[in-house]
Amino acid sequence: MSNSTGRLFRVTTFGESHGPALGCVIDGCPAGLVLDIDAVQADLDRRRPGQSALTTPRGEADRVEVLSGLFEGRTTGAPLCLIVRNVDADASAYARVSEVYRPGHADWTWTEKYGHRDWRGGGRSSARETVARVAAAAVARQFLSLEASIEVVAWVEQVAEVTALIDEGTVTRALVDAHPVRCPDPDAAARMAAQIEAAKHAGDTLGGVVACVARGVPLGYGEPVFDKLQADLAHACMSLPACKGFAIGSGFAGARLRGSAHNDPLYFDADAGRVRASKNDAGGVLGGISNGERLVMRCAFKPVSTHFQPQQTVTRSGEVHTLTNSGRHDPCVLPRAAPLVEAAVLLTLADHALRLRAARPFGRERP
Amino acid sequence: MSNSTGRLFRVTTFGESHGPALGCVIDGCPAGLVLDIDAVQADLDRRRPGQSALTTPRGEADRVEVLSGLFEGRTTGAPLCLIVRNVDADASAYARVSEVYRPGHADWTWTEKYGHRDWRGGGRSSARETVARVAAAAVARQFLSLEASIEVVAWVEQVAEVTALIDEGTVTRALVDAHPVRCPDPDAAARMAAQIEAAKHAGDTLGGVVACVARGVPLGYGEPVFDKLQADLAHACMSLPACKGFAIGSGFAGARLRGSAHNDPLYFDADAGRVRASKNDAGGVLGGISNGERLVMRCAFKPVSTHFQPQQTVTRSGEVHTLTNSGRHDPCVLPRAAPLVEAAVLLTLADHALRLRAARPFGRERP
Amino acid sequence: MSNSTGRLFRVTTFGESHGPALGCVIDGCPAGLVLDIDAVQADLDRRRPGQSALTTPRGEADRVEVLSGLFEGRTTGAPLCLIVRNVDADASAYARVSEVYRPGHADWTWTEKYGHRDWRGGGRSSARETVARVAAAAVARQFLSLEASIEVVAWVEQVAEVTALIDEGTVTRALVDAHPVRCPDPDAAARMAAQIEAAKHAGDTLGGVVACVARGVPLGYGEPVFDKLQADLAHACMSLPACKGFAIGSGFAGARLRGSAHNDPLYFDADAGRVRASKNDAGGVLGGISNGERLVMRCAFKPVSTHFQPQQTVTRSGEVHTLTNSGRHDPCVLPRAAPLVEAAVLLTLADHALRLRAARPFGRERP
Amino acid sequence: MSNSTGRLFRVTTFGESHGPALGCVIDGCPAGLVLDIDAVQADLDRRRPGQSALTTPRGEADRVEVLSGLFEGRTTGAPLCLIVRNVDADASAYARVSEVYRPGHADWTWTEKYGHRDWRGGGRSSARETVARVAAAAVARQFLSLEASIEVVAWVEQVAEVTALIDEGTVTRALVDAHPVRCPDPDAAARMAAQIEAAKHAGDTLGGVVACVARGVPLGYGEPVFDKLQADLAHACMSLPACKGFAIGSGFAGARLRGSAHNDPLYFDADAGRVRASKNDAGGVLGGISNGERLVMRCAFKPVSTHFQPQQTVTRSGEVHTLTNSGRHDPCVLPRAAPLVEAAVLLTLADHALRLRAARPFGRERP
Repeated sequence: MSNSTGRLFRVTTFGESHGPALGCVIDGCPAGLVLDIDAVQADLDRRRPGQSALTTPRGEADRVEVLSGLFEGRTTGAPLCLIVRNVDADASAYARVSEVYRPGHADWTWTEKYGHRDWRGGGRSSARETVARVAAAAVARQFLSLEASIEVVAWVEQVAEVTALIDEGTVTRALVDAHPVRCPDPDAAARMAAQIEAAKHAGDTLGGVVACVARGVPLGYGEPVFDKLQADLAHACMSLPACKGFAIGSGFAGARLRGSAHNDPLYFDADAGRVRASKNDAGGVLGGISNGERLVMRCAFKPVSTHFQPQQTVTRSGEVHTLTNSGRHDPCVLPRAAPLVEAAVLLTLADHALRLRAARPFGRERP
Repeated sequence: MSNSTGRLFRVTTFGESHGPALGCVIDGCPAGLVLDIDAVQADLDRRRPGQSALTTPRGEADRVEVLSGLFEGRTTGAPLCLIVRNVDADASAYARVSEVYRPGHADWTWTEKYGHRDWRGGGRSSARETVARVAAAAVARQFLSLEASIEVVAWVEQVAEVTALIDEGTVTRALVDAHPVRCPDPDAAARMAAQIEAAKHAGDTLGGVVACVARGVPLGYGEPVFDKLQADLAHACMSLPACKGFAIGSGFAGARLRGSAHNDPLYFDADAGRVRASKNDAGGVLGGISNGERLVMRCAFKPVSTHFQPQQTVTRSGEVHTLTNSGRHDPCVLPRAAPLVEAAVLLTLADHALRLRAARPFGRERP
Repeated sequence: MSNSTGRLFRVTTFGESHGPALGCVIDGCPAGLVLDIDAVQADLDRRRPGQSALTTPRGEADRVEVLSGLFEGRTTGAPLCLIVRNVDADASAYARVSEVYRPGHADWTWTEKYGHRDWRGGGRSSARETVARVAAAAVARQFLSLEASIEVVAWVEQVAEVTALIDEGTVTRALVDAHPVRCPDPDAAARMAAQIEAAKHAGDTLGGVVACVARGVPLGYGEPVFDKLQADLAHACMSLPACKGFAIGSGFAGARLRGSAHNDPLYFDADAGRVRASKNDAGGVLGGISNGERLVMRCAFKPVSTHFQPQQTVTRSGEVHTLTNSGRHDPCVLPRAAPLVEAAVLLTLADHALRLRAARPFGRERP
Repeated sequence: MSNSTGRLFRVTTFGESHGPALGCVIDGCPAGLVLDIDAVQADLDRRRPGQSALTTPRGEADRVEVLSGLFEGRTTGAPLCLIVRNVDADASAYARVSEVYRPGHADWTWTEKYGHRDWRGGGRSSARETVARVAAAAVARQFLSLEASIEVVAWVEQVAEVTALIDEGTVTRALVDAHPVRCPDPDAAARMAAQIEAAKHAGDTLGGVVACVARGVPLGYGEPVFDKLQADLAHACMSLPACKGFAIGSGFAGARLRGSAHNDPLYFDADAGRVRASKNDAGGVLGGISNGERLVMRCAFKPVSTHFQPQQTVTRSGEVHTLTNSGRHDPCVLPRAAPLVEAAVLLTLADHALRLRAARPFGRERP
């Protein structure tokens, strides 16, 4: 497997859904950062299920513990290891399907590739592994805030057919969290919630789209030709569970525009003392490098694979099996996916913040 | 910058639009591969502009030269260096805009980040850098064919509002190349060509979508949790010039489906001796790992940034400037983008083919 | 910092001398390996101090705990996280020197580089970080045993002026451990022990040389031109605390030989069915690749920096300070360095075992 | 193979002894560096054989050509590709031994590992590959001079039994080059030359030791725990052809010292405004990080493998063969090894110079 990401802000994650613990090691975070552990915990709490009737009520406490890298409340440059113990880890419910390949899940491919699989709650393939990403990203968030006053906010833009139009310039995490569906447009949020309730009632599940903005990203993040900022952002987002699509700026809609409409005109903003774009179809990147405008991204999530209608599948030994799930499962992960998209974006930006440090050209003052 | 990609099939590219040469170094390609240089040249020829009235007539010969790594026609395990000399490299036309930030282009961000910029034809930020990717991918194609009988075909699925529906199971590169617009549906191709002509006449430009299928990819490519196959594919595709979106399988459309409709049912295919999916909304990946079904991807490309209508912009020193382009430029890069998407996919698959070799579990026969 | 090593058998370590825990994450270990935790604990116990009057009596239990990656006793391909809690972590003795730069120690450079330093027992710069390397290497040892029947044995070859001549073909870990000084020549061991006792009595410390053999390494490990096997072995060994020199085969002594004496003649060994070298001045590598003969390496360790004689130094604020240490400290780390050299070699070989898998050439049967 | 090195100042090399060209790609060199190509050529000329009666008279011109990354004489941040064409590449002399495994050479291991080998002059395993390292290092030298006023000088300290004692503080490249044997002590140089002549007359070859100093390295290079500066230096040096040992500071000799003699006392140098060491047994590193004192390293080189006395060996098919070389070959590579050690050190320092940029802690002014 490949459980590390980033070149300079390097994050390694580990842990299974029903193992002893999940965690991350962050190597490369500069020394001297005052780490607010309560804020890390708050980010973990946002990811945690069971916060509303719309999400699974599994009672995970998800308390973060710092094993290394902190001294007197500040980072030392040494690797930070953060772990979260699994406490509500009764796997017996999964034993029933340990030999069954659940459609839409990783059971099939992981078993065939690795031979030996931890089937308890999906093991390493469980979306619960994102606990570790969120913990690491909470550190990245604090680093980015200090390094460049960056803030990253993601929200649910679409659930099934319901779409919201949100102002990327003013949306905040508080606005996002105001409704359990994590859509900051109350009307759209209410309709989304209704859709989720209906799907739950029908034993079915929904997908949707999470949008994300990063404000305050300075010009210069991204390393052409292969590690363009949008490429690394796509890599991070597309590694999230259930994510099937990524777009930046105009994305797939932009493919329908004319060049004369798509290009963002430029002007010199005397107040800011720098060049600006007068609109943002580019989504904050040009030539693979952030241009100082807002980064705007979208991630498509497929509907949750665990629904409650009968499904045709096979067992590990190839026998026909009709699977009918029961138990507690989210009918829609979108509200919980928003913090994951934030985490993916934060980790990518933290890495490029450090990479920009190293790329400083000669012949100009330090940025 | 970051001009290397891949962990085991490692490709490094170099070169500018109007410099002496472009090229790639491929490190990690196994020894003993009989390399068909004519096939490499043919892949380069497919990327080359000037093949039809729809694309720019710049007369680049783009002859590949092998500097290292081959002996008696076979790879030796040593790094392959392939270069292409620039022969039609008159940069004088660019001198006029060397101080102007062209909207939609990299001029702004690259100049501000690196301070010193090769403005001749865009320098390193020119789409011409993809010559090197295509050369490297031509080697990857031959490697993958030998390693696992993989074939990768990309085509133009959409230009502006015109969309084609293509059978991913049967489309071939010959069918794609049958029409200069590289859409294998002749009716759609004709309508796309008409749109391109109309845009050209209007001094405007178009975007669109390239679709790509990889057939023959065995179960097992992809390394969770960060280097899931779709994540690495997205990374490769989103690093292509002008690419603004990536999707696998159902992509953004899948976000509107119910789980009961989206999940692909599984069955045991006795003829193939393996588990199969009875449809392919997953697009060939489950849990980040290829499942043996066809990989199906889509890439959105923004309209070409160089159009011929007046644009508001600034110079390097911040002065207001109205830019009106002239000269020869593609009104639509989609036909030429198809080989680039193939290249991105091929390089990613070649890397994961080698990574799968290393991941072989104990307790089972070698794959 | 950089706390990860290996390209395919990737190990990340974390933890401080007096923090909550030390640990490692191993990513890339193939699935299906039956992991003997008792053997991991045994390797940790070998590293542990306090085993004899010759080493520091700090009462560390160093019990390993597996946080992830194991299921039903076998690896799953997921990252293994192993941690060891710090239990004897009274740092108050260090407070006295928290502002003093101890000569020979990392205090000076780490403080100046990172600004904020965990001074408790040296923090991350303590040799105690090697607990994590040994834990990871214990997994590597089991992997290598299964992959290629490799065994790695290190011993103390020299303490100060006393040198032992050991047969690399027959030395075992049991023979090494038979004497607390870890020199398998009883006479030399006794003389070494006497030197150590004398140094201890004088309040002084000693250095020495650890030799190491790896038997059973197949032909093919090592990746020219930069990751030649000896280069990666040197990297791993030279990253050990106090290591100031590395040599393979004839090493520095070979620099005095003539080519006619140094070259190892080759012959075909009909019994083994392969080419062999009739002597081994090469130390098991040719052209950067293992040749199937024994790997033989040597590592020079400087004398322990913490001695008990007065030393001239400065405080963090630059004031003159005369340092006189007290407390319990090893007068000679060589007995404990032998397991560390083994660990460095094991981690390097595990990585190259996987890299060899990926490098299999076409046109020959699988190795 | 693995032909890239460095994390941020990333160098990839390619090329064979008798192929079309050798070269390097440097990715990560900051933009804005005025590159003196004549100085690059001068460094290549230093490496070139045929400069005296003591070295092989092969008439290689080794003219460097820049394929990319330069514009108007300055780096742009884009990858620099430098190549050197092979012009004196008559391989017919090697055809005779194409099936013979020459003792001490890579023939055996490379053929068995890769199956298909370029036997012309050793192909990729030839020491001629170091042309590319020296070219890359010549760029690194100019970068380091601008970044931190670093200068690196290597010299021949020992040939067979003759050893010179050189002042590391004052030795210069001009002094080194004053004698063809590249030992800046004229008396020792004369004795070394006599030894080389005698060995040449006897049809035999010699080894020796190259010493190297890096002056001006600021405190802070090196990244514990795995990429300590001495570990990366060892990696770079041990990857040089024929290098069998590496030491820093007191090295193997230090293993015989007492701690009270070895530790370097510290003091505050008011003139320099920083802490200094009053001697330098550490060799410029403490805790894996440069301390601002001179880096002092030594590399042991085995005697040249191609001598002219009969040698027992086998052919590729395992038949007994007595090899007797003829032709033109260096009896001692030490004079040519000095520039290679410089190159290894320069590339390592360039990488760590950039890594230090990224590691800047919070709470202190920029270094």
